[in-house]
Amino acid sequence: MELQFLGTGAGTPAKQRNVTSIALKLLAERNEIWLFDVGEATQHQILYTTIRPRKIDKIFITHLHGDHIFGLPGLLSSRSNQGGNSALTIYGPRGIEDFVRSALRVSETRLSYPLSFVTVKPGLVFEDDTFSVFADELDHRIQSFGYRIVEKPHPGILLVDKLKEDNIPSGPVYAKLKAGETVKLADGRIVSGQDYVTPEQPGRIVAILGDTRKTQHALALAEHADVLVHESTFGRDEAKLAKQYYHSTNIQAATIAKQAQVKQLLLTHISARYLGKLVHELQTDAQMVFRNTKVVSDFDEINIPFQ
Amino acid sequence: MELQFLGTGAGTPAKQRNVTSIALKLLAERNEIWLFDVGEATQHQILYTTIRPRKIDKIFITHLHGDHIFGLPGLLSSRSNQGGNSALTIYGPRGIEDFVRSALRVSETRLSYPLSFVTVKPGLVFEDDTFSVFADELDHRIQSFGYRIVEKPHPGILLVDKLKEDNIPSGPVYAKLKAGETVKLADGRIVSGQDYVTPEQPGRIVAILGDTRKTQHALALAEHADVLVHESTFGRDEAKLAKQYYHSTNIQAATIAKQAQVKQLLLTHISARYLGKLVHELQTDAQMVFRNTKVVSDFDEINIPFQ
Ligand SMILES: [Zn+2]
Ligand SMILES: [Zn+2]
Repeated sequence: MELQFLGTGAGTPAKQRNVTSIALKLLAERNEIWLFDVGEATQHQILYTTIRPRKIDKIFITHLHGDHIFGLPGLLSSRSNQGGNSALTIYGPRGIEDFVRSALRVSETRLSYPLSFVTVKPGLVFEDDTFSVFADELDHRIQSFGYRIVEKPHPGILLVDKLKEDNIPSGPVYAKLKAGETVKLADGRIVSGQDYVTPEQPGRIVAILGDTRKTQHALALAEHADVLVHESTFGRDEAKLAKQYYHSTNIQAATIAKQAQVKQLLLTHISARYLGKLVHELQTDAQMVFRNTKVVSDFDEINIPFQ
Repeated sequence: MELQFLGTGAGTPAKQRNVTSIALKLLAERNEIWLFDVGEATQHQILYTTIRPRKIDKIFITHLHGDHIFGLPGLLSSRSNQGGNSALTIYGPRGIEDFVRSALRVSETRLSYPLSFVTVKPGLVFEDDTFSVFADELDHRIQSFGYRIVEKPHPGILLVDKLKEDNIPSGPVYAKLKAGETVKLADGRIVSGQDYVTPEQPGRIVAILGDTRKTQHALALAEHADVLVHESTFGRDEAKLAKQYYHSTNIQAATIAKQAQVKQLLLTHISARYLGKLVHELQTDAQMVFRNTKVVSDFDEINIPFQ
């Protein structure tokens, strides 16, 4: 499980940073890649990574501002041209389907794969055996969502070699032991599954938030997350501007990270005004509030290890 | 008057070539820039040129395929963010307004300048004191236009110094001489405007064609043009494929250039299959038919001199 940042800029593309897109690489876990937002030229950025568009099978949109969605029609078209044929689902605010369908209709684009849409509402957005995704509304001028991606726990592994060593014969009893039960064997011994199963491995949690003012809704989304991705359009002394433009400062993001007790904070959606030393300051100022903070750059890849 | 190629690739963006956009720089002539097609990431390409988006006040769309229009919403938004406030007009096939308005509406983008649309039909598309633009339909799967941009002749300049030398007093007579008339002066002399006015300077002609099969309509659009910009999606031996996919070969483009007696042929819309030596071959093969042919690359700038 890795995050790769395809665009880390705010509002308008610049030479140093493209507009927003974030890839959650779940290749080991699901052989899939999920995208969060698709700013213009996301497909161009992907050309410089190992990501193959046909592996992208879910796209989550935080909000409908142009710098977060204008790359969608092109990416969807190229995924088709490049032989993608597996279904793709787009999750996002009401309106995203209109935008995409209008672009595909006008350009007479016929996709080689089934495309479907899910209109996001606060609560559970997606769930299967290995992952669930929750959403909640943030505080932007337009409806904006944060997503909490929760990996389900990996069950413990049955220690078959140890069972053989202890002369416990295979059979239905193995399933019971794996489920953690205590079992009486044919020879009269009483054995406990806990001695023959590795501990359950907790899943990882990633919180990816759309553009937002500081909001308490961020806390539940981010609670105990392994990684929190938060916007940081403004710097330390610009809380007033941040409020006025419905964005956050680095300090506000770090405060959320601290209160939610996350393990790592990644700051993105960086204004083009911040270059070189100023970016470093954005990071060090935030680190005064929450130590494990990093301002990410385009193409940064962040591994998310098990704890 | 210069052409600058912002994207010279076919269909899908590649590292070597972006999808189509062409800038006609009329800075000396009108202090304006006109764009022809706006593929995705055209605004990103512009970051690497001297073009300022607020100077772009006309955009001509050849056809509605995604690789020719998906960069429009982003470019229009950024032009607004960067302080553009002069009116902008988009000329293109029916459907372009739907696409743009839908993208701006869904993203809640409010532009800082008036935006208007002209639905193109064959014939005169635009005319003012210095330029006219004609369109005609080509032969693509979707409606596709070629544009013929005609600069009006620059009138001759009145040689005031020579008039003074010859003791011809200023007054209404100067206007008559400038218009080429023959005039009787107060002192009885008869003088001809032709002796006091430089020759009229013919305007330049640029033909920019959208994606197309070989078509006779290209001939009238390109007739005696200073520059013909023609697609060349396929190579010498691929006429069958070209027909099947509604595109042209380099040889077909060169044949049009020769028949239309243009001065220079620029080949664009180059497939990603053509790299290095193959691009050179695309050019040299076409040159066998029409000598003054060049396969253009992204960012190439072509000056169009007076004859
Ligand atoms: Zn944004
Ligand atoms: Zn094309």
